[in-house]
Amino acid sequence: MSLIVQKYGGTSVADLDRIKNVARRVKRDYEQGHKVVVVVSARSGVTNRLVEDAKALNSNPDAREMDMLLTVGEQETIALLAMALHSINVPAVSRTGAQAGILTDDVHTKARIMQISGGDIHTQLDSGKVVIVAGFQGRNKDGEITTLGRGGSDLSAIALAAALKADLCQICTDVDGVYTTDPRIVPDAQKIEQISYEEMLELASLGSKVMQSRAVEFASKFNVIFEVRSSLNNNPGTIVKAEVPSMEDVLVRGVAVDKNQVKVVVRNIPDQPGTAAKVFKAMADSNVNVDMIVQNIGRDGKANLTFTVPTDDAYTAEKAINSTMEAAGVPGVVVLTDRIAKLSVVGIGMRSHSGVASRLFTAFAEAGINLQLIATSEIKISVSIDLSKADEAVRVAHKAFELDKAKK
Amino acid sequence: MSLIVQKYGGTSVADLDRIKNVARRVKRDYEQGHKVVVVVSARSGVTNRLVEDAKALNSNPDAREMDMLLTVGEQETIALLAMALHSINVPAVSRTGAQAGILTDDVHTKARIMQISGGDIHTQLDSGKVVIVAGFQGRNKDGEITTLGRGGSDLSAIALAAALKADLCQICTDVDGVYTTDPRIVPDAQKIEQISYEEMLELASLGSKVMQSRAVEFASKFNVIFEVRSSLNNNPGTIVKAEVPSMEDVLVRGVAVDKNQVKVVVRNIPDQPGTAAKVFKAMADSNVNVDMIVQNIGRDGKANLTFTVPTDDAYTAEKAINSTMEAAGVPGVVVLTDRIAKLSVVGIGMRSHSGVASRLFTAFAEAGINLQLIATSEIKISVSIDLSKADEAVRVAHKAFELDKAKK
Repeated sequence: MSLIVQKYGGTSVADLDRIKNVARRVKRDYEQGHKVVVVVSARSGVTNRLVEDAKALNSNPDAREMDMLLTVGEQETIALLAMALHSINVPAVSRTGAQAGILTDDVHTKARIMQISGGDIHTQLDSGKVVIVAGFQGRNKDGEITTLGRGGSDLSAIALAAALKADLCQICTDVDGVYTTDPRIVPDAQKIEQISYEEMLELASLGSKVMQSRAVEFASKFNVIFEVRSSLNNNPGTIVKAEVPSMEDVLVRGVAVDKNQVKVVVRNIPDQPGTAAKVFKAMADSNVNVDMIVQNIGRDGKANLTFTVPTDDAYTAEKAINSTMEAAGVPGVVVLTDRIAKLSVVGIGMRSHSGVASRLFTAFAEAGINLQLIATSEIKISVSIDLSKADEAVRVAHKAFELDKAKK
Repeated sequence: MSLIVQKYGGTSVADLDRIKNVARRVKRDYEQGHKVVVVVSARSGVTNRLVEDAKALNSNPDAREMDMLLTVGEQETIALLAMALHSINVPAVSRTGAQAGILTDDVHTKARIMQISGGDIHTQLDSGKVVIVAGFQGRNKDGEITTLGRGGSDLSAIALAAALKADLCQICTDVDGVYTTDPRIVPDAQKIEQISYEEMLELASLGSKVMQSRAVEFASKFNVIFEVRSSLNNNPGTIVKAEVPSMEDVLVRGVAVDKNQVKVVVRNIPDQPGTAAKVFKAMADSNVNVDMIVQNIGRDGKANLTFTVPTDDAYTAEKAINSTMEAAGVPGVVVLTDRIAKLSVVGIGMRSHSGVASRLFTAFAEAGINLQLIATSEIKISVSIDLSKADEAVRVAHKAFELDKAKK
């Protein structure tokens, strides 16, 4: 008999039929004798409607009141799922984040979990009940309702699994697991059987979008093994866990692509100490995430600075640089922007095997794909490429590392 | 500077424009230097949608989970109203029922208030904030979320006014106040300036529908003076308070009519001790509210029993009587039912003035309106009449007691 924590996201509980589907899945595990804790998100659409209402009343709604407003989404779902379980004769009880003892700090809309008591969850499980917990939410020490930010339900599930010492944590979503790359781009993409936290983090933050990074980081910190699997079928998913030696046998675990990137080129920066630093300070002050930085000094002593930012931040970035340079009295600086794609190959096998970069660059060269910026880490190589070549580049990279037939 | 508790019902906060309207009203009182506590209901429609979802998943949803589900309605409203107030520069903070310290017993969906601490409401008011409290809801000693049943937001407001020792409690609704009768039937109906709890209770329970009886009973018990007034205009409303001698100058305060009544005639009851009692026991066991009971014994020694029940309960009543008589082996009992209207004239002046009944019956006789059943209490005379004559009877009664021009 295991203690299983299962998380179902907004699309998995989007309507009453899907809630019934989740209830049947929970019932199956419950009838096999497992103790089941279910963490659910708001029904998809509910949160967006509430956000629209809020914005219509106040262009800059108070963070505390946003938490008060948005937490109703999960509270609806937990009650409805409990009713659906009752109707198929599964004893169940719902718990808000506060009732489940999810204690957070005071930072509304992006609170951090400080401690999880679990409330009376163990007692309820011992009495034969399924316990349904509202994801995404908690309370601070003063009893204020808080939320954990985007993707917070994944975090709730993983943190609960850690606190309850669960045997298994399942993140049930609308995909079958983590793939070697986006199957819509490469139909031969393979589901990955197991993956390390580190690889998952790189893939998640690079646009594979299965889970938010914070939940993976939390799992890594508290060594919570979890499985990403479908809420609609019974296929085995992808196990995410700490690195084991055998994982290094695979050179590259997956290829991620992020098409929402803009390359920013800042030209004619005078060669004065600190001027380039001003550019990055302007980015940081504007909360713009900068990546893939390259600087080169021209013969005239002027520098060019190139880096990438998310498309959503491009306008902010451009304005911030121009006004910073103007304020600093630096003339002649030109900012050019261009939408690009960022492709990354990720694998902890790279640590102990060389030749990944050369294999990738050779494959791109043979395919006539031009690389612009290159950035590397211990387990990742990222390149920026022309947006129009993005899908082709993914196919080339996927094939170059034989991911279509690789041992997964 | 007064402490005002204001309650706005579901229609008063039904959409974003109405929420903005409420915010402007609250701002006006706030800017006059008053401390304002606002109690709100769920936006009208929200509760019904949630109930529909629940019923679609479970024909008999668990009471605890219903409370978990339905309390999101008010939680939405409090957050949205706080945002609306912020946007017009009024400092405000929202509180769930639990956060406002509304402690109830354990009876989900119809909990009784045990105690109200108010939480930190006084502190928030002292710091210059408007406090917005979710009506209808509380929590029990174990931290479970409970609800107060139909009309619970009125009760929340009045109980909070008592606990906070408010100077004024305003029940803001979609009517201007309590009228001498339904203005849709009698255009000359007058708004009542002040009315006693007792009269209000008789009028409320008789279908004037302004407020639920429990809230009025609570106000009476704790002597909370409140005003029923419109949320859409600034007209003075009706003050509801304990009886004062001058109230007795008015013989009849108002005329109420309830068109959802069925007259039940049980014929041929054998004259055996306890047989009639069996009928009423069957009604009680079926939770059917019985009123206006008349029994007459025929010459054959058989009794006829006549009483009224709400239309919604008529079918249940008829079935219960038939099966009880069958189970008791009593043959020949016939149950006849007929929809009727119940008209009541109410006024504490009746206590000290005689002649009300004769004046009413004379007026009906002159108008050719036939009375069927008659029931009286110290401050009320009720008669059952033909449904088709209901409106005419209201007009006749209203005129007979000069309510169209009466000192109100």
